[in-house]
Amino acid sequence: MLFDSLAIVGVGLIGGSVGLAAKARAATRHIVGIGRNSDTLAQAKSLGVIDEFSTDLAAVASADIVVFCSPVDHIVRQAREAATHAKPGVLFTDAGSTKANIVRDLERHLPAHVRFVGAHPLAGSEKQGAENARGNLFEERVCVITPTAKTDIAAVERVSLFWQALGCKVKPLTPEEHDLALATTSHLPHFVAALLAGQLPAKWREFTATGFRDTTRIAAGDPALWTAIARENSLALSHALDEFGMRVDKLRNAVLNSDGETLTQLLAEGKKVRDALGS
Amino acid sequence: MLFDSLAIVGVGLIGGSVGLAAKARAATRHIVGIGRNSDTLAQAKSLGVIDEFSTDLAAVASADIVVFCSPVDHIVRQAREAATHAKPGVLFTDAGSTKANIVRDLERHLPAHVRFVGAHPLAGSEKQGAENARGNLFEERVCVITPTAKTDIAAVERVSLFWQALGCKVKPLTPEEHDLALATTSHLPHFVAALLAGQLPAKWREFTATGFRDTTRIAAGDPALWTAIARENSLALSHALDEFGMRVDKLRNAVLNSDGETLTQLLAEGKKVRDALGS
Repeated sequence: MLFDSLAIVGVGLIGGSVGLAAKARAATRHIVGIGRNSDTLAQAKSLGVIDEFSTDLAAVASADIVVFCSPVDHIVRQAREAATHAKPGVLFTDAGSTKANIVRDLERHLPAHVRFVGAHPLAGSEKQGAENARGNLFEERVCVITPTAKTDIAAVERVSLFWQALGCKVKPLTPEEHDLALATTSHLPHFVAALLAGQLPAKWREFTATGFRDTTRIAAGDPALWTAIARENSLALSHALDEFGMRVDKLRNAVLNSDGETLTQLLAEGKKVRDALGS
Repeated sequence: MLFDSLAIVGVGLIGGSVGLAAKARAATRHIVGIGRNSDTLAQAKSLGVIDEFSTDLAAVASADIVVFCSPVDHIVRQAREAATHAKPGVLFTDAGSTKANIVRDLERHLPAHVRFVGAHPLAGSEKQGAENARGNLFEERVCVITPTAKTDIAAVERVSLFWQALGCKVKPLTPEEHDLALATTSHLPHFVAALLAGQLPAKWREFTATGFRDTTRIAAGDPALWTAIARENSLALSHALDEFGMRVDKLRNAVLNSDGETLTQLLAEGKKVRDALGS
C-alpha cells in the first residue's frame, strides 16, 4: 500500500475514477469521499467508489493524501480549509484543468505542515458523475505535475508515485507551461466544439453525420466547469483564440477567393498533425 | 434485383461501400467499377467490391444505373462523358458532398436519354480507399436527394429505391438547401477541425487527450477532396464561416473580460444542441 488513507474531495467522474483506480490497483487501504451532496456521495459509496463519506472537509483529518477533484474555482478555497484539519506531513494534490492560479495561491497560503503538488491527469469524458467513473480512466494517460522551486522534492516523488499507481505516465511542467499548452490542447477545442454545436439550427440536425458528432462530442460537457476553466486560464485561452481567429479569417478569405492553394495548405497542415497523433 | 447492372465511377471509400452494400443487399446482379488507377481497381475487385473494372468511362454502356462517387470537382465532367456511352433510359446519381453546381450543370447538359438525380449519402470516414469500404456504411444514414422541377419523377422514385436498398433513409432537399445545410453540418466542422489540428505545435502533442482527438479526427481526411468541396460550396461555406467568426469573437471577448454569463450561455447553447443529437 502506497498510502494507508486517501481522501477524495469532489467525487464526480474524475474523483470517482481516482477512487476506483486506487482500489483496483491497491494504492490505498481506505478512501473517504468528501462533497456537498450526501445523496450522490451515498450513491458513490454504494457503487464501491469510496468506503465512507462526509460533507465536511474536516473528514480529511485521517488522510495521508488528499486529492482535490472539484471544479477549478473551488480547489483553492477547499484546500485552504482542508489544511486547517489535515494531519502533519499530509500530501495534497489535485486534478484541476488549470494550474497557475491554483499552484501560486496554495504555495503562498497553505500552512507548512501540508505539502501540495499540483497535478492534472489528461483524462476525462463529456459524461459526468461518479456513476460514469471508470477504474481504467487513467491507464496510459499523461498526468502533468507542476512542481515549482518552492515545492518539496520528496512530496513531488510521493505524488508522482500516487498518479503512477493509478496508471498515469507523469510529466512535469511549470504551472504556466501547463496552462499555455492546455489552452491549445484542451480548452480551445472545448470551446470551439461548443461554438460549432451552438451554430446548428434544429431544422438541420437530421443532416449531421459522424463528422459533426465527433467534432462536437465534448460540447456535452458541464458548462459551469468550463466557464470556471476559461476564467482561471483567460490569458492563455485568449491568446489561443487570437491565433485561432486569425486562422479562421485566413480560411474565410481562401474560401471567398476560391484560393485552392491556401485551402489545401491549411487542410494538409491539419492532416499532418492529426495523422501524427494516431487514432 | 432492383437493377441488373450497376456502374460505380470512383471506387474509393464511398464507391467501394456502395459496391459492398449493393452486393450484401442484393440490389444488383453485376457491378462494374470505373476509375483512373487499374491497380486500385484490381484490388477492389479482389476484395469483392466490384465484379469487373475499367479505366474507360465507356464501360458504363451496359449499366442500368451509374453512381458517381468521385471527388466533387470531377463528377460533372465524368457524367457528361459517360452520358455519351450510356444506354437509353439509364439512371445517373452521385454521392457528391455538394449539389447545386453539379445538379444545375448536369440538368443543362446531359442528353435526354440519361436521367440524373443528385444524391448525397451522409456517411463517410476520415479513412480513404476501397480497402476501408464497409457494406454497412449507409445503414440508417440519411441520403439527401436533390430533385428539381426539371427532374423526372419516375427517376426520383427509382434512385430513392436504390439508396434505400443500400440502407439509407432518403430525404429530399433542393440542391441549394442541401449546400446551405451541409456547409454548417459538414463543411464548417471539417475545416474547423483542420484549423484546430494545424494550430497544435509538435512539442504539445503529448498533452492532448480524447477531447482534442475527437474534435480533430476528421482533419485526417484527404485535403484535395475538401479543397474541391470548399470551392464548389464557397458561398454557403463563407456564410457559415462569417457566423462562426463572429461567435469566436464573442467568445474571445467573454474570455478576456472574464464574462462568466456569456461563457456559460455559449457553452449551454452548445451542450443543448449536442445533447439533442445523442452519441
